[in-house]
Amino acid sequence: MDLYFSPLACSMATRVALYEAGEQANYLEVDPRSKRVQTDGSDFTKINPIGLVPTLRTDDGVVLTENAAILQYVADRFPQAGLGPTSGAERPRLHQWLCFIGTELHKGLFVPLLDKKAPAEVKTYVLGRYLSRLDYLEDHLKGREYLLHHFSVADAYLVTVINWTMATPPIELAKWPALKAYFDRLRTRPSVAKAIAEEFELYKAELARHKAAA
Amino acid sequence: MDLYFSPLACSMATRVALYEAGEQANYLEVDPRSKRVQTDGSDFTKINPIGLVPTLRTDDGVVLTENAAILQYVADRFPQAGLGPTSGAERPRLHQWLCFIGTELHKGLFVPLLDKKAPAEVKTYVLGRYLSRLDYLEDHLKGREYLLHHFSVADAYLVTVINWTMATPPIELAKWPALKAYFDRLRTRPSVAKAIAEEFELYKAELARHKAAA
Repeated sequence: MDLYFSPLACSMATRVALYEAGEQANYLEVDPRSKRVQTDGSDFTKINPIGLVPTLRTDDGVVLTENAAILQYVADRFPQAGLGPTSGAERPRLHQWLCFIGTELHKGLFVPLLDKKAPAEVKTYVLGRYLSRLDYLEDHLKGREYLLHHFSVADAYLVTVINWTMATPPIELAKWPALKAYFDRLRTRPSVAKAIAEEFELYKAELARHKAAA
Repeated sequence: MDLYFSPLACSMATRVALYEAGEQANYLEVDPRSKRVQTDGSDFTKINPIGLVPTLRTDDGVVLTENAAILQYVADRFPQAGLGPTSGAERPRLHQWLCFIGTELHKGLFVPLLDKKAPAEVKTYVLGRYLSRLDYLEDHLKGREYLLHHFSVADAYLVTVINWTMATPPIELAKWPALKAYFDRLRTRPSVAKAIAEEFELYKAELARHKAAA
């Protein structure tokens, strides 16, 4: 299994899921600016034409894109890890959270806030439209340990997204205490702590590379 | 089964899926501005706190939100309709398309373009960032009838989203001939034609209601 990723991008959720499952993968780093695969300098857009990580190549050679789809694939591929209900009434709830995180938080709120090229009007607009989604999360997380009844790929995704608040100062996480407690708890979970530590080193190297090229 | 919807909103995809399956549902119209359920004037945010359609109440009384999750639920609930692979290698591909349409097209490109309150800078920004996603779709649809090998809930979602181009003049659908042919073909499909015709009438009534209240 090959996982194309960029440091601290949403692809980190799949790394967390694979660590949880205790499964191996080839992690292939993609530079988000040049879209080059770092191991061999090849063009990542030949693998995924829209150039987005994560992209997964399964052991059968199938190339799969889109974060929520890849997370469900990993959960289903390694059912013994219990990363998501494979059937029953809880499965639609997993889909619901993956979809909410992907649309309302990741794409709606965070992508424009993290984009250095986005004009101030865009950042103001998305804060006005999507910041209240954190209130909704806050209500859900009060008195809960995870999004579902146990750790799932939806938590892997959410912790990856909330980790971005370190780079989005308009969002002061302390304003949502249940969400902050959830994040503080999850980021010490071994799979998450290991993924963040490893990808943070790679992220620093990426910044240094971009600075040297500027 | 209760489906909370607004005319021509993304909830139309679930109506199409239910028509395809030949299944009944109570369709409860929500005014997108007041967030009132039209049948009884009740507050929709008591059902879904973020106020978004579709929201589904299953026959077991479970309330489910998020379009892609509801579409998968309907496909799984009525497997005889063949609206999505319930297992096997095609299932991740269904997830991939639902996720792509939900994040890149629906939330990324169309929501800001359709938002009358979004500043011009926001519309310019999303066109610059997301319009190329239609090139990606165009490439995929060349020589294909559907997103997967057969009609699925992903097509129900895509046709609903592409239908919005009638209200987003910066997107000239004729520039993507395979996508346009796909849309022209699918909108004559009985389930889709019926859903669009019915919801267009309700949409006109919604506009008249808003005008009268202004």
